[in-house]
Amino acid sequence: MFNTVTIIGVGLISGSFALALKQQGLAGRVIGVSRTQASARKALELGLVDEVLPLDEAVKQADLIYIAIPVDATIPVLQQVLDLLQEGQIVTDAGSTKEAVCSAVAHHPMRGRYVAAHPMWGTEYSGPEAAVKDAFRGRTCVICEKESTDTDALQQVEQVYRDIGMHLTYMDAASHDTHAAYVSHISHITSFALANTVLEKEREEDAIFQLAAGGFESTVRLAKSNAAMWVPIFLQNRDNVLDVLNEHISQLRKFKACIEKDNKEYLQELIENANRIRRIIQ
Amino acid sequence: MFNTVTIIGVGLISGSFALALKQQGLAGRVIGVSRTQASARKALELGLVDEVLPLDEAVKQADLIYIAIPVDATIPVLQQVLDLLQEGQIVTDAGSTKEAVCSAVAHHPMRGRYVAAHPMWGTEYSGPEAAVKDAFRGRTCVICEKESTDTDALQQVEQVYRDIGMHLTYMDAASHDTHAAYVSHISHITSFALANTVLEKEREEDAIFQLAAGGFESTVRLAKSNAAMWVPIFLQNRDNVLDVLNEHISQLRKFKACIEKDNKEYLQELIENANRIRRIIQ
Repeated sequence: MFNTVTIIGVGLISGSFALALKQQGLAGRVIGVSRTQASARKALELGLVDEVLPLDEAVKQADLIYIAIPVDATIPVLQQVLDLLQEGQIVTDAGSTKEAVCSAVAHHPMRGRYVAAHPMWGTEYSGPEAAVKDAFRGRTCVICEKESTDTDALQQVEQVYRDIGMHLTYMDAASHDTHAAYVSHISHITSFALANTVLEKEREEDAIFQLAAGGFESTVRLAKSNAAMWVPIFLQNRDNVLDVLNEHISQLRKFKACIEKDNKEYLQELIENANRIRRIIQ
Repeated sequence: MFNTVTIIGVGLISGSFALALKQQGLAGRVIGVSRTQASARKALELGLVDEVLPLDEAVKQADLIYIAIPVDATIPVLQQVLDLLQEGQIVTDAGSTKEAVCSAVAHHPMRGRYVAAHPMWGTEYSGPEAAVKDAFRGRTCVICEKESTDTDALQQVEQVYRDIGMHLTYMDAASHDTHAAYVSHISHITSFALANTVLEKEREEDAIFQLAAGGFESTVRLAKSNAAMWVPIFLQNRDNVLDVLNEHISQLRKFKACIEKDNKEYLQELIENANRIRRIIQ
């Protein structure tokens, strides 16, 4: 239980986190910090935050500072927060990449107060209106470089994620970024590219609209995701994302070759291999 | 209302169709025709069909014959059914490709009794166990080459699809196959290829299992789909599928180039373009 939690960024993740804190009675007060007036007003209106303050003041008043903004902005903001931090305060982030941010603050005198985390949950929507109740339940939260974090800070963040229903897992930042490229970042790229493919070639939008069945919807759903969030993720996780993307293009080329050559047996083999994903997702 | 409907194939589509007929009171009796004993038994057990008979006998007894089997098998089976057909009987199919089947029977003396249809609904599961109630409601059913179908046959099939809650749309078989490549076939290929990408490179299945968030699940869901159904679709719709697949690979290469060159502006443009899919899927 925290007296005051400050969320920096009042969007999908931080807004849903604030709702979960309130629902579980884990925070006396939630302060929001927002780059725009419109989001700040919306977050107040939706009851995600009790108050909106400038960053300096909001950090000063908080026991826990929760940063959930695009990953390129996370680095300077985290540095700024660490500069402001007093003993006993804790800062954590919810970013989808972890290596760049961990490196950037590795030698900061207050590094021990920072918990590098990535709660693996999200939707294709963004902004305060996208915040939902019971968002994180049943999902996994990755905590990175825990050996660089003070024990008390680590334990409190672990406890809050457990209290809102998450499983915890631990890894170094580089491993996190590799896995994230596979289980999240590539899905977004394929979905964006699929939307562009269809929008480019299928000029008759009416036909798409009428005919699009459930399969299409599920594969392009992520294409609605926000550029401000995803551009910095892809660029910050460049090497891993390129690795996976190259492999993905080469897998697509195998399908292409089979279809070109009418190679029924190999096409069947490719599909049956893909079916092994049944073991992993139910 | 039909006295007797025969479904050829007792799987996801025909089983769900049989359930819908029964629920709406549209068929007095449903006969199943199945290639395997196991599926026949299962379909009886699940109450999808009232009886299982050999094809000849099942066709003879039916007012409406509904073919829902892999699209390569549809052609000879439809020819066989048309050969057996008597005046007044109707045959329709639910296949995901329409040009090859329409061409194959174009000159059959009983062509007028065939309604070429594609109810745009499906899931990644197959077999009689995959059949679900209220499957087609709210989705679109495409009817092709209606000018080649006898008016009474067309009207009865239109009515049954309307009665189970589908919207109807009409197009020639070639247009259907082009649109289907965009709104359905390519989604399956990207999903299969994505599953293969992850399974190939991400050897730590535990990590995928733990970390896979909702986005991953939705983009690889279709990778569980059945090879026996999808291999013939891709091969029968070869030219359209290759067209879309080539475009898709070139769209992925644009993402690759942006990330390689750290081209933030163009990456943002690609994503914002993809966001236009919001207009089409809610």
